[in-house]
Amino acid sequence: MRNSKPKKVTAFAPATVANVGCGFDVLGFAIHGMGDRVTATRSENAGVRINSIEGDEGRLPRDPEKNTAGLSALGLLKKMGLTNEIGIDLSIEKNMPLGSGLGSSAASSVAAVVAINCLLGSPFSKEELLPFSVEGEIAASGTAHADNVAAALFGGFILVKEHQPPDVISLKTPKKLHCTIIHPDIEIQTSSSRKILKKEVLLEKAVKQWGNVGSMIVGLYTNDYELIGKSIHDEIIEPVRSLLIPGFAEMKLAALEAGALGCSISGSGPSLFALSKSRKIAMDVGMQMGLALDKIDLKYSMHVSKLNTRGAYCEGLD
Amino acid sequence: MRNSKPKKVTAFAPATVANVGCGFDVLGFAIHGMGDRVTATRSENAGVRINSIEGDEGRLPRDPEKNTAGLSALGLLKKMGLTNEIGIDLSIEKNMPLGSGLGSSAASSVAAVVAINCLLGSPFSKEELLPFSVEGEIAASGTAHADNVAAALFGGFILVKEHQPPDVISLKTPKKLHCTIIHPDIEIQTSSSRKILKKEVLLEKAVKQWGNVGSMIVGLYTNDYELIGKSIHDEIIEPVRSLLIPGFAEMKLAALEAGALGCSISGSGPSLFALSKSRKIAMDVGMQMGLALDKIDLKYSMHVSKLNTRGAYCEGLD
Repeated sequence: MRNSKPKKVTAFAPATVANVGCGFDVLGFAIHGMGDRVTATRSENAGVRINSIEGDEGRLPRDPEKNTAGLSALGLLKKMGLTNEIGIDLSIEKNMPLGSGLGSSAASSVAAVVAINCLLGSPFSKEELLPFSVEGEIAASGTAHADNVAAALFGGFILVKEHQPPDVISLKTPKKLHCTIIHPDIEIQTSSSRKILKKEVLLEKAVKQWGNVGSMIVGLYTNDYELIGKSIHDEIIEPVRSLLIPGFAEMKLAALEAGALGCSISGSGPSLFALSKSRKIAMDVGMQMGLALDKIDLKYSMHVSKLNTRGAYCEGLD
Repeated sequence: MRNSKPKKVTAFAPATVANVGCGFDVLGFAIHGMGDRVTATRSENAGVRINSIEGDEGRLPRDPEKNTAGLSALGLLKKMGLTNEIGIDLSIEKNMPLGSGLGSSAASSVAAVVAINCLLGSPFSKEELLPFSVEGEIAASGTAHADNVAAALFGGFILVKEHQPPDVISLKTPKKLHCTIIHPDIEIQTSSSRKILKKEVLLEKAVKQWGNVGSMIVGLYTNDYELIGKSIHDEIIEPVRSLLIPGFAEMKLAALEAGALGCSISGSGPSLFALSKSRKIAMDVGMQMGLALDKIDLKYSMHVSKLNTRGAYCEGLD
């Protein structure tokens, strides 16, 4: 029998790829085998504390009012009217590089609210938890974007129909899709990679973009892998942000030549993602992308996996 | 048995709604029970002639080089290397108002190429016919847009992924959808309603738009009628073009209050379309929209029907 109100819960939330080429700020998906863990423990002292953060090399704020996971937790307790009644200690275990474009802050934020929700007997559905995690994201990127957060929470592909209040749709996620992530050893802050974007875009290019978002969704719902690949096309954001990523053009070309369906920047970068139809192709794609970085002597890490379709969950509770 | 090379063929192509709110230049659907007929007759004199046009009050050019149906026909014969070998006389029967925003020129253009294709023993598939009809559209709007043409040709909902060369996807079309068309008795040329659009749009608004195109496609593939309705939302084109349509805001409000899923401008207007979940609601919607125009003493015509999912076809050949 499920213990409805345990004293300590650890939740996992996956790393995520936002934008997916064509869908700036509206599309995202979750990656299997990479993500953050947050342990929430009941305490006798009311309020939220961040007891420890592992894996951030001491760089993330320990003050819950300034930390994405802390802010999400505070929002959740406030909503329940429990801010002065319940005490929660958070321990955050980060398992992905900061500023990598893989939704690091979203993963911590989501894992925190999911852990606390379990700790309190799961009063909220995942849909209801979404706004709290989005609030936490504001701390990280300066603006509220639900793409990474929603993908980390629900898993699979998601579409953000509206940002404020967040209106998110879980999309069909074709089973054969495998993801290759290459993380070049440089760091880009979401806030600065957002500043370099122009506030206005050509209508003509916007039309292309919404045509591609449309065809991406058709591809997902009809398991048309080639169409998914063709839809990973971005003439608005990628040409600007890719300038910040050394070897971008070479990596992308290598990915496509190795058989990837499509390849673009993950979130605000510097990581690149490629989607492929099998693990074997995804591995080849990663190797070829890596060789492109070897040529310019840039270190990198690589991750190949299926997509995560489970989303965030509490460990040991089901 | 099918007569593979008749001497005279009449083809029908339906009226169409382009843009569908969120999907400027990329989304469209075909309407049942309204459209143009083109009869193609073999002649001993090589070349394409337009023998007659009915229903245009003498306003459309009879010179095939200047007429959308004529240009499409000429393109088709040229492609087959038959320009100087085959003679074709076209008779065009227009059954919808010109400049109404219902794809009048697309319907004639599509009906012409479909009729000629049948006349020649159907050497081309519908997919192969698409580029010829798009070429014909250039004559009407000054730019090549495949949205009306593709919807008229294939029927149902379509997505234009790319315009040049046209790459079009036939979408799922939920069965209960009914369409209300209100055509106020004013005329807007596509070319002039295109001129008033700004060439640049705010990235923020473009993001909303591609979120809505995405959710529209999800709605179509999952038969989620409410989501289809919520996705008919346009903050870029509608606010500008609606200024040319007297009573627009009142009609839209009336449509939504009468239970329409969504309502916006059909193509470049002045017609409005509304989508509803049943014929009864679609009728109520039309009546209420009409009352809104009665109040400002503007005449109009109304059309209520299911969507056309067959597309263009040759009469009496199957």
